[in-house]
Amino acid sequence: MKRIGIVAPASRLIEAFPDRLRAAMEPRFGGRVELIFHPQCFEDWGHFAGTDDSRARAFVDIANDPSLDALWFGRGGYGSCRIVEAVMPKLNEAARAKAYLGYSDAGSMLGALYKASFPHVAHGPVAADLHRQGGQAAVERALAWLVDRDPASLEPGLGALPHAAFNLTILSHLIGTPWMPDLTGHVLLIEEVSEHMYRIDRALWHVVHAVKGLAGLRLGRCSDIPDNDPDFAQTEEEVAQHWCAVSGVPYLGRADIGHDADNKVVPFGVR
Amino acid sequence: MKRIGIVAPASRLIEAFPDRLRAAMEPRFGGRVELIFHPQCFEDWGHFAGTDDSRARAFVDIANDPSLDALWFGRGGYGSCRIVEAVMPKLNEAARAKAYLGYSDAGSMLGALYKASFPHVAHGPVAADLHRQGGQAAVERALAWLVDRDPASLEPGLGALPHAAFNLTILSHLIGTPWMPDLTGHVLLIEEVSEHMYRIDRALWHVVHAVKGLAGLRLGRCSDIPDNDPDFAQTEEEVAQHWCAVSGVPYLGRADIGHDADNKVVPFGVR
Repeated sequence: MKRIGIVAPASRLIEAFPDRLRAAMEPRFGGRVELIFHPQCFEDWGHFAGTDDSRARAFVDIANDPSLDALWFGRGGYGSCRIVEAVMPKLNEAARAKAYLGYSDAGSMLGALYKASFPHVAHGPVAADLHRQGGQAAVERALAWLVDRDPASLEPGLGALPHAAFNLTILSHLIGTPWMPDLTGHVLLIEEVSEHMYRIDRALWHVVHAVKGLAGLRLGRCSDIPDNDPDFAQTEEEVAQHWCAVSGVPYLGRADIGHDADNKVVPFGVR
Repeated sequence: MKRIGIVAPASRLIEAFPDRLRAAMEPRFGGRVELIFHPQCFEDWGHFAGTDDSRARAFVDIANDPSLDALWFGRGGYGSCRIVEAVMPKLNEAARAKAYLGYSDAGSMLGALYKASFPHVAHGPVAADLHRQGGQAAVERALAWLVDRDPASLEPGLGALPHAAFNLTILSHLIGTPWMPDLTGHVLLIEEVSEHMYRIDRALWHVVHAVKGLAGLRLGRCSDIPDNDPDFAQTEEEVAQHWCAVSGVPYLGRADIGHDADNKVVPFGVR
């Protein structure tokens, strides 16, 4: 039996969600996994699932609990960066032994954990991805990694080099902070959602010029791109190839990650 | 007679613009200023006023021309960061002696010029601000600084410390790049437009945690903030005060800059 704690450092979950998730997981994981939702998941403070203090305490509660095997991010949105400074100094050895899984906004925290050399940090579906079209597959994939470390859950192109995966905008905002990990020698996978092409271009410009020593870049899906006025006239892949060429970062093709149910798991570091 | 060159590193100008601007400037500056529009201002390449090569060449043409006293950014939009790497190594001593004025997207280039110790770099209205409501005052203010260094054009709160002013999002994307100036000991003025509160919050979090040694932060206007869903429940000033308190950067109040006709001039460095 694996015990997985769920917190919501960004947006809140609805009260009906735990029952739905447990029902969805029963066929494949029944009797093998226990999902523990921290009460903070259902708090409400403006944009956030509770105050910064409450969200930070909940993260530390779950992370430091030696009876739990993993911390699963409940949902994206915005808010992880606001608690990273309070959380990181409080994490103990039980926290270091744990697995962490999330993406999008969670990248602020995943980056900080990876910088602190936590060994089991991964970019992949959050619990609330159950709500997506095809979301059953996304949360099963997440648990397949959290419970079984199933290789089938992994992004298929991961080779021998160390990897890191981020939402592009989240990574852009982590650069230069005390929580930005050293990605020297890493293949970086990025994905984006709901950003204009000029913003994708600008953030890619930022990343290739500010993140030192990348071994390569792979482009995940960039979905729900709003119309650009005037038309940007370049696709996200053309832009990624351009900035890779300019900066000397090898462009290594597309990656199977994104804000969708197909989002595969990318463990940070060496697979 | 001051001779001022105009380029458009981001969005294009319309062909009718030079006549309109010259007519608007005639009453106050007639006979004292000549406006030289580089033909690149009217080029069209997707999102941009010409290709990266064309915009970079135009910038260098104007900057390096010893017969010109200043380079005035024609318009904002997006595109300055894309040419900074090509432009900076080509600038000569005539470029170093020149004054530079712009804001918003132009901040990528202004930051690079200031990092390269160019002595006359300022944040203030662009030529296309003539189109704004009350824009006549904005462009007169710009020329009052470019032509006369009129103290009345300056942001009224500039004291003895060195200053820098940026659009918040532009500054966030400059952090960690080779063109990010050292702002140690500086009072930083920031402004924003058309960004959700959660994005303003995230970029402020980024700036206070990644820009080292600030002597203080002053908050310009944050205009056209789209609705946040759910409501963010904090204003831009509450958020700025919060992150200043958290990071130990003195919050020094509001600044008279922004995406509007009241946008005052902020010379980089010591006034």
